[in-house]
Amino acid sequence: MTDLTLAAAQTLVATALKTARERNLKPLAVVVYDARGALKCLAAEDGTSLRRAEIARGKANGALALGLGSRAIAKRAEEQPHFVAAVSHLVGPDALVPVPGGVLIRDAGGRLLGAVGVSGDTSDNDEICALAGIEAAGLKGDTGA
Amino acid sequence: MTDLTLAAAQTLVATALKTARERNLKPLAVVVYDARGALKCLAAEDGTSLRRAEIARGKANGALALGLGSRAIAKRAEEQPHFVAAVSHLVGPDALVPVPGGVLIRDAGGRLLGAVGVSGDTSDNDEICALAGIEAAGLKGDTGA
Amino acid sequence: MTDLTLAAAQTLVATALKTARERNLKPLAVVVYDARGALKCLAAEDGTSLRRAEIARGKANGALALGLGSRAIAKRAEEQPHFVAAVSHLVGPDALVPVPGGVLIRDAGGRLLGAVGVSGDTSDNDEICALAGIEAAGLKGDTGA
Amino acid sequence: MTDLTLAAAQTLVATALKTARERNLKPLAVVVYDARGALKCLAAEDGTSLRRAEIARGKANGALALGLGSRAIAKRAEEQPHFVAAVSHLVGPDALVPVPGGVLIRDAGGRLLGAVGVSGDTSDNDEICALAGIEAAGLKGDTGA
Repeated sequence: MTDLTLAAAQTLVATALKTARERNLKPLAVVVYDARGALKCLAAEDGTSLRRAEIARGKANGALALGLGSRAIAKRAEEQPHFVAAVSHLVGPDALVPVPGGVLIRDAGGRLLGAVGVSGDTSDNDEICALAGIEAAGLKGDTGA
Repeated sequence: MTDLTLAAAQTLVATALKTARERNLKPLAVVVYDARGALKCLAAEDGTSLRRAEIARGKANGALALGLGSRAIAKRAEEQPHFVAAVSHLVGPDALVPVPGGVLIRDAGGRLLGAVGVSGDTSDNDEICALAGIEAAGLKGDTGA
Repeated sequence: MTDLTLAAAQTLVATALKTARERNLKPLAVVVYDARGALKCLAAEDGTSLRRAEIARGKANGALALGLGSRAIAKRAEEQPHFVAAVSHLVGPDALVPVPGGVLIRDAGGRLLGAVGVSGDTSDNDEICALAGIEAAGLKGDTGA
Repeated sequence: MTDLTLAAAQTLVATALKTARERNLKPLAVVVYDARGALKCLAAEDGTSLRRAEIARGKANGALALGLGSRAIAKRAEEQPHFVAAVSHLVGPDALVPVPGGVLIRDAGGRLLGAVGVSGDTSDNDEICALAGIEAAGLKGDTGA
């Protein structure tokens, strides 16, 4: 496998949202970036708050920026808050949101293909939906746990 | 009722300021956004400090961004300071101010119409004025309490 | 119909991309915003350049900011370049791209529901795909022509 | 007369909007800043586009930044486009919009009290409404003509 295809990203998003509906979660925004940090696919369910998609973007964008699932960035924010605050200034307009729900996407061989960010319910539930989507696309998720 | 009208927003602002004068509060800035996050109505009383209106804007804008009254955002900032600090970067130039006084505006059926932000006196007094204004406009306030 | 649903936005994006493949256009990015200016749905085809999605976003975001299809903004940029350059500074990080391919989305009654931006091929072809998507969703496009 | 009062600013805004309705103009946003560049009063009529208030703000904010009515800034943008483009970078998030409709507000003695910005119809009509409002408040407008 080489790059993250739009077909795979769309499967990922569809499954993440299906998982959210099966669990009766709050409305989610789901966003997928490719390995370059380019937006590949995004969907915001009906009823999401005004900047919900930006929060999802910040989870995924931060994960790509540091090469760490956002759960690991959340831990680092506890330990080294000034480091994470500083990185927030240099990751660009897509921001960095240091809570779980930003998951790196890898192929079977471990090569980085991109990242998914999910926001809308608890961070733990957001992450469950991200992982379900990645699995449905036949790929591997790295939450930073 | 569908969208927030300018007439309703003006009633809201006038009543919030009248409430402040009746209680002899410090000079207030009051700002109303519609559900799109667009500025609808604003008034800053004589004697407000240089960036008082921006503080009021940050309370209301943050509430809309997250779909939570700013009292709930204040609580979250205690529990997850890194999350709230991060979201401050992605809510745009109108910023996010995580203290009470940013109140979501809903119609009788619960539909989100916008948000009001008040700043100038204590956060609790700011919120009282916001709620008085919303009630006078025949709408429902959601403080996040 | 009230707000733009995710289902409608997904139909719009799928049809825009199908139209591009039928016409053998270059790889496209297609983005849909709701009337609040919140990202609703986005897809970038395989092979798009690094900031292609941002260009699509700037077309749609600019259309919403000014309430004009981006074809009209392109015309205004010819007549009043300083005005359009200035507005680029205030439309937020999603920017403003004053060429055709940013199309306002209205319901049958003319109410504004959002905007779609398409980028990747010529601006005229981009706009054709945007309109095909809007029509497939049962909605009305306003190109600014 | 000393500072611009909220009462005067509200009279100004109300008269500008009344003038727009009498002339059957498109929906307007009207914003008043005091001499410090602090937002004093703002109203956006129902039906204004997403960033209309920001355009009004940019007209008034630019006028204050340079001490010139925005009609003079528009002329300067024709003659020295690079100067006006550069100033756009340093005027802060409220921006600079170099077209007519940003009018300086002075008292009878010529002392600068603030600025009003109007946007929504043609720039000439926007300016007419700004001047009507200033006159109703018993003050003097300086359009930069």
